[in-house]
Amino acid sequence: MTISMYTASIPVFKQMLDSMSNVLAKAEAHATAKSIEPNALLQARLFPDMFSLIHQVQIAADFAKSVSARLASVDVPSYEDNEQTFADLQARIAKTLAFINGLSAAQIDGSESREIVLRPGTPKEKKLSGQTYLLSYGLPQFFFHATTAYDILRHNGVEIGKRDFMGNY
Amino acid sequence: MTISMYTASIPVFKQMLDSMSNVLAKAEAHATAKSIEPNALLQARLFPDMFSLIHQVQIAADFAKSVSARLASVDVPSYEDNEQTFADLQARIAKTLAFINGLSAAQIDGSESREIVLRPGTPKEKKLSGQTYLLSYGLPQFFFHATTAYDILRHNGVEIGKRDFMGNY
Repeated sequence: MTISMYTASIPVFKQMLDSMSNVLAKAEAHATAKSIEPNALLQARLFPDMFSLIHQVQIAADFAKSVSARLASVDVPSYEDNEQTFADLQARIAKTLAFINGLSAAQIDGSESREIVLRPGTPKEKKLSGQTYLLSYGLPQFFFHATTAYDILRHNGVEIGKRDFMGNY
Repeated sequence: MTISMYTASIPVFKQMLDSMSNVLAKAEAHATAKSIEPNALLQARLFPDMFSLIHQVQIAADFAKSVSARLASVDVPSYEDNEQTFADLQARIAKTLAFINGLSAAQIDGSESREIVLRPGTPKEKKLSGQTYLLSYGLPQFFFHATTAYDILRHNGVEIGKRDFMGNY
């Protein structure tokens, strides 16, 4: 066994997207059981100028697909950000998982030295190797939004624990 | 260039511990500028049965040192959890950085297939390869606590942004 760009990306995204789906299912069940308006959770945020739960899930899913696509040198699929319900978020996660499950190790392995350009053509353009892009940019960004989605729900009293966040490993 | 267990661990921990140090410095400056009692931030938590900021920082630093040490097959240094101030947390981060900076690529590379035993001797014992231990357990745990520390401060009005969380990459 050797570590590869594939094993450092796709299985990690899968594990965490699966756990995010499970956490959202628990949040929806909690809202139903406690007669909580779903939007009280879906639109919740930790501070007025932070993103809502819906947006945190959208962005986490976006990093999973965009990082995976760029490492595989395929076009990043474009999804409308029109989710409004828990069912919509589950569908967003499911289509993200379907996309990354369709990428093979052969497409992603070897991308460690490929040049990836962030924000191309802008003053904030930045060139990174595929390895730095994944480890120092993509995974931290992904985990930031995945954790903040969890933290929003935990802050609002949904009975979830770190085991739910971690998922199956 | 190839991806290795060293490049997938130590530089990531360094980047995020440096950014955590910077975020905590901004939080301390914010408390001073607004005449906020430091403990109002240090003891803050997002929900009564979640950990405080101090504990989130301690645990994040613990994962950085324990994951790095186990991959390098050296003893995990033991630190007392006695931090009470921002200066104490900075010292905790500094000694964690000093420890992981002392580990070489030669010590960590090749650990991808080494067996790591989580919670040995307990009913929850789990055996993982070094690679799975790092990517599916260590990094998610580390990012969970690093992000939650940031979220606690953001929730309490400290003026920080995702750029501060990401640090230098």
